[in-house]
Amino acid sequence: MPIYTCTTAEGTLTNDAKASLAAEISKIHSAINHVPPDYVNVVFTELPTDNVYVGSEPGTPVLISGWARRGHPQPDVTRLALEVSKAAATITHKSEKQVLVVIDDSPARSAVEHGSVLPEPGDEANWQRRQHPA
Amino acid sequence: MPIYTCTTAEGTLTNDAKASLAAEISKIHSAINHVPPDYVNVVFTELPTDNVYVGSEPGTPVLISGWARRGHPQPDVTRLALEVSKAAATITHKSEKQVLVVIDDSPARSAVEHGSVLPEPGDEANWQRRQHPA
Amino acid sequence: MPIYTCTTAEGTLTNDAKASLAAEISKIHSAINHVPPDYVNVVFTELPTDNVYVGSEPGTPVLISGWARRGHPQPDVTRLALEVSKAAATITHKSEKQVLVVIDDSPARSAVEHGSVLPEPGDEANWQRRQHPA
Repeated sequence: MPIYTCTTAEGTLTNDAKASLAAEISKIHSAINHVPPDYVNVVFTELPTDNVYVGSEPGTPVLISGWARRGHPQPDVTRLALEVSKAAATITHKSEKQVLVVIDDSPARSAVEHGSVLPEPGDEANWQRRQHPA
Repeated sequence: MPIYTCTTAEGTLTNDAKASLAAEISKIHSAINHVPPDYVNVVFTELPTDNVYVGSEPGTPVLISGWARRGHPQPDVTRLALEVSKAAATITHKSEKQVLVVIDDSPARSAVEHGSVLPEPGDEANWQRRQHPA
Repeated sequence: MPIYTCTTAEGTLTNDAKASLAAEISKIHSAINHVPPDYVNVVFTELPTDNVYVGSEPGTPVLISGWARRGHPQPDVTRLALEVSKAAATITHKSEKQVLVVIDDSPARSAVEHGSVLPEPGDEANWQRRQHPA
C-alpha cells in the first residue's frame, strides 16, 4: 500500500544497498503498519550530482519520502520514520546526519491498489479477505 | 492544477502508452475535479529495473501519485483514484493488480500556478475569470 | 527539513539555473519557515521531453513540489509558494504561466532528520539546541 521513494545522487547507493534497503523498509513498514510485505513499494531515484543540493550546496544526502494511509496512530508513524532512518544509515554506511525520512499521508479512500480502495488503518485483515476470498 | 507522477521500471510503458495515459488522466481529472484539462500536469519517471521493488523483490508496477487540492468531496477523490487505476491497467495492458494510485492533498492556498494562489474546490470558475478577464 | 523536488523536461534548466534556484529556494524557505538554510534539500528531476505533459500535450513546465511540516501558519505557506514561483520564473527566464508550486505537508512527528524527530513549527530553536548542545 505504501510507496517509498529514496532519492540520492548517483553513486551513493550500490545495487546491494538498494536491495537491502528495499527489504528492510518493507520489513519495518509491514511490522508497524500491518501491511503484508508484498504490498510495500520502494523505488530509487538516482540523480546526477549536479541535481542534489543541501543548503544551497551540492550534497549527497539520502532523502526518503514515504506515503502511508492517514489515520495510523502518530506514535507508530514516528517509530516508522525513526526505524527507516536508522536502517538507511546502517545500510549505506552513512551517518544519520545525512538521512531525511518523511512520511506523507492522505486518506486511505484516496488510494486504489489491485483495483480496490485501500482499507482504513486497522481494517487491513478484512480487506485482504475480500481481496482473496477463500 | 494537479500533478500526476507515474513511476515505472524502464520498458514498462511505450511512448504511445505514455501519451494515452497522460490524455486519459487529464480527461478524468478535469471531469471530476472541475479543472480545465490544460491545467493537468502528468509526468513519467522511468527507473532502471534495479531501482523498483515490490515486497523486497524487483517488480514492474505502475505507481501513480497524484496531488490535488484538499477539500474535494471524498467520494469524488475516491472515484478519481478508481478511474485512473482502471485507465492505467487498460492502457498498459496490465492487470490492476500491478497498479497503485494515490491521490495526495494539501490546501489550495499552499499552491501557486500562473502566479496565482489556487482556488478552493468549488471556486474554479471565479478563479479562471480572474485569470482571464473578458 | 523540507525537500523541494523540481521536475522539468531535459534542457529546461542550465546547471547555473539549478544552482541559483536551489540557493534561492533555500533562502526563501529559511526566512519564512525559521529553518537554517543548510536543512533545506532541493533536488532536480529532469525527464525526457516525451515524459512531461501539460493538458495532454508535451510541455516544458517547471513543476516544484515542496514538503514542509504541517502547522505553519497558512499565510506563511501561501507566501512561500508565491515567492518560490516568482523566483523560479525569474531564474529560468520563463513566464509564471509555466510554473506550478505545491507545498505538501504532514506532521513534523512523521519526519526524522539527523536521527531526530522534527520539531513542531515554532520549536525550531529548542530543537537545534538539543541537536548541538553547547
